Amino acid sequence: MKGTVGELGEFGLIRELTSRLTTTPAVRLGPGDDAAVVAAPDRRVVASTDVLLEGRHFRRDWSTAYDVGRKAAAQNLADIAAMGAVPTAILLGLVVPAELPVTWPTELMDGIRDECQVAGAAVVGGDVVRGDTITVAITALGDLRNHEPVTRSGAQPGDVVAVTGWLGWSAAGHAVLARGFRSPRAFVEAHRRPEPPYHAGPAAAGLGATAMTDISDGLIADLGHIAEASKVRIDLRTAAIDVPTQMSDIGQAVGVDPLQWVLTGGEDHAIVATFPPDVKLPARWKVIGEVVNPSALPQVTVDGAPWDKAGGWDHFGDAEPEDPAGSGHPAG
Amino acid sequence: MKGTVGELGEFGLIRELTSRLTTTPAVRLGPGDDAAVVAAPDRRVVASTDVLLEGRHFRRDWSTAYDVGRKAAAQNLADIAAMGAVPTAILLGLVVPAELPVTWPTELMDGIRDECQVAGAAVVGGDVVRGDTITVAITALGDLRNHEPVTRSGAQPGDVVAVTGWLGWSAAGHAVLARGFRSPRAFVEAHRRPEPPYHAGPAAAGLGATAMTDISDGLIADLGHIAEASKVRIDLRTAAIDVPTQMSDIGQAVGVDPLQWVLTGGEDHAIVATFPPDVKLPARWKVIGEVVNPSALPQVTVDGAPWDKAGGWDHFGDAEPEDPAGSGHPAG
Repeated sequence: MKGTVGELGEFGLIRELTSRLTTTPAVRLGPGDDAAVVAAPDRRVVASTDVLLEGRHFRRDWSTAYDVGRKAAAQNLADIAAMGAVPTAILLGLVVPAELPVTWPTELMDGIRDECQVAGAAVVGGDVVRGDTITVAITALGDLRNHEPVTRSGAQPGDVVAVTGWLGWSAAGHAVLARGFRSPRAFVEAHRRPEPPYHAGPAAAGLGATAMTDISDGLIADLGHIAEASKVRIDLRTAAIDVPTQMSDIGQAVGVDPLQWVLTGGEDHAIVATFPPDVKLPARWKVIGEVVNPSALPQVTVDGAPWDKAGGWDHFGDAEPEDPAGSGHPAG
Repeated sequence: MKGTVGELGEFGLIRELTSRLTTTPAVRLGPGDDAAVVAAPDRRVVASTDVLLEGRHFRRDWSTAYDVGRKAAAQNLADIAAMGAVPTAILLGLVVPAELPVTWPTELMDGIRDECQVAGAAVVGGDVVRGDTITVAITALGDLRNHEPVTRSGAQPGDVVAVTGWLGWSAAGHAVLARGFRSPRAFVEAHRRPEPPYHAGPAAAGLGATAMTDISDGLIADLGHIAEASKVRIDLRTAAIDVPTQMSDIGQAVGVDPLQWVLTGGEDHAIVATFPPDVKLPARWKVIGEVVNPSALPQVTVDGAPWDKAGGWDHFGDAEPEDPAGSGHPAG
């Protein structure tokens, strides 16, 4: 595939993109008509939208188009799973400069398609527009399969807090990349391509999760959303939180407490949920804290005390640090 | 509401936007969680995505933020209606520069909300990101209410072609604006704010429409999509197509055959469909042509002959004219 998207033209690019797609039984009508039709057997559909901009959410020199596609899809599909739903479909709104090589959007689409396949979903439609800044707007849909949606507002004092998936790996990989290194590869890969535990979302709904979210902004920040919505406090126990040896090594090399990555690093899209205390959790869930009554303390505490370095991330704030990756979490 | 979106911050802006929304019984969970939940009683969901860019699809000096919101929502909701579905929900992905006054996105949201209300839908979620170019990425959802989706591929020779809604009004309004005028207001208003006949889509599905689409690129262009997908030719009869007197007057004033606007002007989001010849159509549908066997002629003909001036619109093509509105149709 040679040439630029401007040379190929709008309809040529759309043909090229849709020709790469695969389908699933849930896709009743795929791309090419006024709208797509997707099965929604539960009689409710779960839907979420995210927008990624070049220079803010990804860098072409750090991530391939394929990895951007994997990551963009993963972040949306994880939102669906975090409601307790099974992802079914993605729609893609894409802005591309005319001078962009055609291989960039086609490899992006390959990445979106492959991540959809991991989650059991398919790309069913979209729109392509020419513009100055590469923009990837993704909407993901999902089906609840007769579970009630697990919101952020159902956590109860006495519940346990449990997590499954990777924590802090993307942040550690970001710290490595930001210092000009390309290894350790496992962490760089984790930054480029998260692996959300999609299956764990619906499974948690089946296990009676009282509140759930995926970790896109950081464990403390995202648990803060649950604590606020549920009007509770959440206390994390650092003794229960594993820091991999290799992550500790990176932390030592770059002068960062690796616990900081685990507690505040985003973009791994692990899934964290609260459960009644008597829940029997599968092996890959780890209990890392508990839900308690609200108090004068912050809504999320670590070993009973405020976590000094925790902070939100405001994409508009004046205080925003210059983060070339715009990756949604402080660089360390 | 004073200040810029940068001063208000991401969370402040999201609060401001969501506080303006209304809801419907179909909204089971609105904005604020990982994803929204929308009723899909048909067990299938219809979904469509469009992306609008400032400078390409709208101009801030020609349209208010409110009108951009109305138009952006209308174009997506019309896609849902054109499948024969009832619109239920919209998700909004929004890119805004930090220096943009807060009133712009809030008025945009008012417009999206109000257009949703016309169509019976509601805004259920979205994402807001800071970036250089205002970008409005909308995904609309809808419910088929036990109708089969009406695609572009079911037109049969012998079917009649019928249309409902406005034709050429947006193009005539665009021609007026492009020449620096602000009146006649009815046409300028039609360019700023289309009025798709949402109810007509599901009604047409109930009447047995064999193919259907909304007119976003122009009557001939969009019927071309039906003719191609259905492997038929469509012949339009100009004697059956009304050109309003006031549109003729504008045509004379600017030196354009107004039939050109009616046949090739986009963005009015009228709904055109093919029906079996014995259909009894409600009063506001007008039969304007028929479906015939394919031949050596173009896929859409006018009074049995090619329409010279008809042409597609390629957002990427080198031959694209400089159209400051980027409005998706030639300026006349």
